[in-house]
Amino acid sequence: MADVLVLGCGLIGTSIGLALRGERDVALHDSAPAVVAEAVARGAGRAWDGQEKATTVVVAVPPLTTPDVLFEAQRRDLGQTYTHVASVQSQVQQQVETLGCDLSSIVGGHPLAGRESSGPAAATADLFVGRPWALCPSGASTSAALHEVRRLALDCGSTPVELDADAHDASVALLSHLPQVTASALAGLLVPEGGQVSVDPARVVLSGPGLADTTRLAASDPALWAEILQLNAGHVAPAVRALAENLAVLAAALEVHAAAGVDPAEDGQAARVVEQFLIRGNRGRAVVPVKRGEVSEAFGRVGVSVDDRPGRLAALLVAAGAAGVNVEDVHVEHVPGRPRGVIELLVDVGVVTALRRALEAEGWHVVSP
Amino acid sequence: MADVLVLGCGLIGTSIGLALRGERDVALHDSAPAVVAEAVARGAGRAWDGQEKATTVVVAVPPLTTPDVLFEAQRRDLGQTYTHVASVQSQVQQQVETLGCDLSSIVGGHPLAGRESSGPAAATADLFVGRPWALCPSGASTSAALHEVRRLALDCGSTPVELDADAHDASVALLSHLPQVTASALAGLLVPEGGQVSVDPARVVLSGPGLADTTRLAASDPALWAEILQLNAGHVAPAVRALAENLAVLAAALEVHAAAGVDPAEDGQAARVVEQFLIRGNRGRAVVPVKRGEVSEAFGRVGVSVDDRPGRLAALLVAAGAAGVNVEDVHVEHVPGRPRGVIELLVDVGVVTALRRALEAEGWHVVSP
Repeated sequence: MADVLVLGCGLIGTSIGLALRGERDVALHDSAPAVVAEAVARGAGRAWDGQEKATTVVVAVPPLTTPDVLFEAQRRDLGQTYTHVASVQSQVQQQVETLGCDLSSIVGGHPLAGRESSGPAAATADLFVGRPWALCPSGASTSAALHEVRRLALDCGSTPVELDADAHDASVALLSHLPQVTASALAGLLVPEGGQVSVDPARVVLSGPGLADTTRLAASDPALWAEILQLNAGHVAPAVRALAENLAVLAAALEVHAAAGVDPAEDGQAARVVEQFLIRGNRGRAVVPVKRGEVSEAFGRVGVSVDDRPGRLAALLVAAGAAGVNVEDVHVEHVPGRPRGVIELLVDVGVVTALRRALEAEGWHVVSP
Repeated sequence: MADVLVLGCGLIGTSIGLALRGERDVALHDSAPAVVAEAVARGAGRAWDGQEKATTVVVAVPPLTTPDVLFEAQRRDLGQTYTHVASVQSQVQQQVETLGCDLSSIVGGHPLAGRESSGPAAATADLFVGRPWALCPSGASTSAALHEVRRLALDCGSTPVELDADAHDASVALLSHLPQVTASALAGLLVPEGGQVSVDPARVVLSGPGLADTTRLAASDPALWAEILQLNAGHVAPAVRALAENLAVLAAALEVHAAAGVDPAEDGQAARVVEQFLIRGNRGRAVVPVKRGEVSEAFGRVGVSVDDRPGRLAALLVAAGAAGVNVEDVHVEHVPGRPRGVIELLVDVGVVTALRRALEAEGWHVVSP
């Protein structure tokens, strides 16, 4: 008997296997044998023989397929506890009940840790580390089942957050599904369609990191996301409607500015609409948790310009260590076509000056003060 | 006589000074003496005495103020060549002409390298490295002036891109101003207002990196961005209108799904709208340049779990160097409250396996295969 049987070796299923490596015995299955082979080759676990039972069965397939796979796994009595990783919980919970599953052994789960890339090749062992993992027991779930699924989430390095399915779906509509919609809408306007504005492809070079970050999610799998948005339409539709309405109000204010010969009072009113729109964005951003790995403002930065020879990064860190400084993080800037790059060392603010002096004394080219 | 006189020591002005450090003699001025003092203390140049002339005058103040500062600098004959860094070019060019400036010595510029933080404290020496810098000469600009401003952009490490003011403004409306609007609109919905959907503050922990990235720009200065959006309203308004309309179409399709007892044909039509919306986003994302410093898929990743003791990062890089491997980049994951972290080494894909084996042989805990 395996500890964990993962059904579905995509990004999430394979990452669960990688995260549990060395701690739990994981069997892997996927409807596509080549996908299982890739997940096994990556070290996520061993191939399931099609018969073996497991303490915990993790259904890691797209949300529309999740209820049927759960039902079939229960019918074959494959596990003691069952969970899944669907981005939408209420619909899955209802479907599972409609299908006649035994609800007592099922606890829905949703690790908030996607990537815009998919499949076992994109999986990583630390995908869940420090991330929330929603646990949504139904009224019928046993506390033993909840305990097992919580243990799985903890073993993957995540932080379990228990809440009911509808509260989950309402929250992720704004926190996860609306960001996807926003990124897709923005990126979509970069390509011409139906006479709408679009950008000259030769000019797209004129973009900064803002466009790259704001459109990153637009690379996500359309089929998977169409499922998610439709399954959570009850919560997502009003959010998208509100977004469209707020943008229409902003567009109207900007149209006032763009028009010639506008009454100054009307123009002043439009200016207030534009500024209030941006201020509301400030307030909203202030409640967004800073992402994992983002560097606290408490760190100081020391930039060093180095040539692109092997070993320079290690030599620099050794020099910092020799100066008695613990480097908290490192950023390396790769600049295509330039023979030199900048390595940024992040250290305690109290040692920035000492580190700069020590590195300069050793002949390093410190670029930012 | 200074090489460069920077008028306005905010993020961009101070970063120009830092970027030119050691290469050009830079004098700095700001209407706020404390801001000059901070820029000087950071090493961006020396304080301007209020009289000295310069080869090139860089006006780095908000766009609405830019024409007046340019006019005054020319009236006092402070430079041979004048440039500015306004995010909107046409309106500045028109204003400058209306004020009666000598257009021959002016070439508008716009480095595409903002940050969501502002002021001299946020400035960095490498802010412009590898980034585009739009140059927008008017028909009256001399080639000597264009040459000087191009040299300034190159000396800051950026890539000059020459285009006319209106083409610039049309491009940045979509590539820079619309991402700002999108991020602000999305973040704004996280805080309650006027009975719209909003998220329970206790649930905001249920967000992943997608929300953090997609709302990053929403932290930008509202007063500055209100100026930019209004000055470029002729191009931004139709883009925001199109965004609002596309989102309204998506909202209508999702409302069909959310309604009970929908006709299957209508439901199928709505499903196609949702998927096409996401596919268009995929197509748009494909034309977005990958941001500077983003790691190519050509690199392989080796994750190593380490305890949080000083010097571990350096020791790991030394171990990699001893194995003959050049580390291209490093990601450090700081996980609050956990005694261990994961350091990810990015290396040539061809050496991943060799590096893993070498590190494991030395007793390192390699976590991802």
